[in-house]
Amino acid sequence: MSVKEMDHKWLEEQKEEIGLALARQGIRLVVPAGSGKKKEATSTEDSALASFIDHTLLKPTASQAQIATLCEEAMHYQFASVCVNPAHVPAAARLLRGSGVKVCTVIGFPLGATSTLTKVLEARDAVAAGAEEIDMVVNIGGLLEKDYARVYSDIKAVRDAVSGQILKVILETGYLSKEQIVRGCILARMAGADFVKTSTGFGPGGATVEDVALMRNVVGDDCGVKASGGIRDLATALAMIKAGANRLGASSGVAIIEGLRGEADY
Amino acid sequence: MSVKEMDHKWLEEQKEEIGLALARQGIRLVVPAGSGKKKEATSTEDSALASFIDHTLLKPTASQAQIATLCEEAMHYQFASVCVNPAHVPAAARLLRGSGVKVCTVIGFPLGATSTLTKVLEARDAVAAGAEEIDMVVNIGGLLEKDYARVYSDIKAVRDAVSGQILKVILETGYLSKEQIVRGCILARMAGADFVKTSTGFGPGGATVEDVALMRNVVGDDCGVKASGGIRDLATALAMIKAGANRLGASSGVAIIEGLRGEADY
Repeated sequence: MSVKEMDHKWLEEQKEEIGLALARQGIRLVVPAGSGKKKEATSTEDSALASFIDHTLLKPTASQAQIATLCEEAMHYQFASVCVNPAHVPAAARLLRGSGVKVCTVIGFPLGATSTLTKVLEARDAVAAGAEEIDMVVNIGGLLEKDYARVYSDIKAVRDAVSGQILKVILETGYLSKEQIVRGCILARMAGADFVKTSTGFGPGGATVEDVALMRNVVGDDCGVKASGGIRDLATALAMIKAGANRLGASSGVAIIEGLRGEADY
Repeated sequence: MSVKEMDHKWLEEQKEEIGLALARQGIRLVVPAGSGKKKEATSTEDSALASFIDHTLLKPTASQAQIATLCEEAMHYQFASVCVNPAHVPAAARLLRGSGVKVCTVIGFPLGATSTLTKVLEARDAVAAGAEEIDMVVNIGGLLEKDYARVYSDIKAVRDAVSGQILKVILETGYLSKEQIVRGCILARMAGADFVKTSTGFGPGGATVEDVALMRNVVGDDCGVKASGGIRDLATALAMIKAGANRLGASSGVAIIEGLRGEADY
């Protein structure tokens, strides 16, 4: 199913079906109003593009020196954030203080198969340590087996725990059918996510233009879409933005921006 | 460096160096006495081999039906435990109640890069939900950059949080040099781990005979060695046991045991 083929009626049916599934589990839904501020402009000017990028280093082997370099680069290029594992949040928060660059971290990462309580406690701990953006992994198994109450409650609990921070919900699209992506987006939106995000970078496949366009189509303009996984050059970054992404997760942020500067010379 | 080349004096020097590094960070070390019960017999009889196996399903896509099948197989073959992600611990504990098969789960998994506090809370939550064995991932970045106080404290905090349960420390050997494996084993042992474990199955490479022999040589007979990652048939399982493993993490436990039964027919 392409984005064009996905008609409005079908999408409404998906939402209705999920709403009913949640109601059967006793979950009364108050769909949060979109704040509208989450969707940033899609300009691709130099500094504007940098502000789309979460400068990312999630390798388990990362050293404190590498995290420091990541933070220096993020301040130099004025990326939106650095995205690091929770163990590195205190150091990143210290290094970035006052810079305008945020600390983003990952919760239930990369499998999404920790308990809801652990995701909540992990998110609270990260915020206490200085994280301002929280990228949580959805309960993937629950989404696959249509246990929507479980998926929704898992997101909602983290949402409530970090109400003052940006919450991004990673769907790990490489495991999902188009329909499962749509339903994941609906659930994330219903639970109050600020962004839906494609991939962890540790699963099968990364962001695709088709998936990003689909996700943007489902969540509308009030919610962000973060493309992540495999975005290593300017052309890919711009393609993702054109498809509807307003945030990019990339470990190659410097190469992407330098690519843009290189192009501007010609 | 082969195991044979690793002489006693060198190993003692490694221990002394790490002890000094910890002392400089204000960590006074009380090395726990080995209980001796942790090293099981290395018989390879049918039922004995099953009792070596943690029957494992850690895929993020696992459904509740697959977890139920895993538990049924574990009860049928009398495996040591089922090893599942934390989100599945309550269901596994319910299904295995009274069976003698334990619930094993994974903490800070698979990157080992969550905060120490989160590892502690996650482990406590898992134990409250019914987990009796805890496989935690070491702070890999800390081990690589020789931040021994960080690595030790991380393990010790989880050890203290789950003092009544079996604690296994996953080193993710695929990232480590031989010397780093040795030091990881020393730190795990100093912090009171019941087992050292090779791999998560999500990192680079799995258990090797050489690494298992090295780990057994370092921890001695009072501590367990769990080989995991890539153990899919009887021959590999027996080779790991011969090298010194007394626990095997495998998703192919049934095939391994059936392989043994097949051999017995000839």
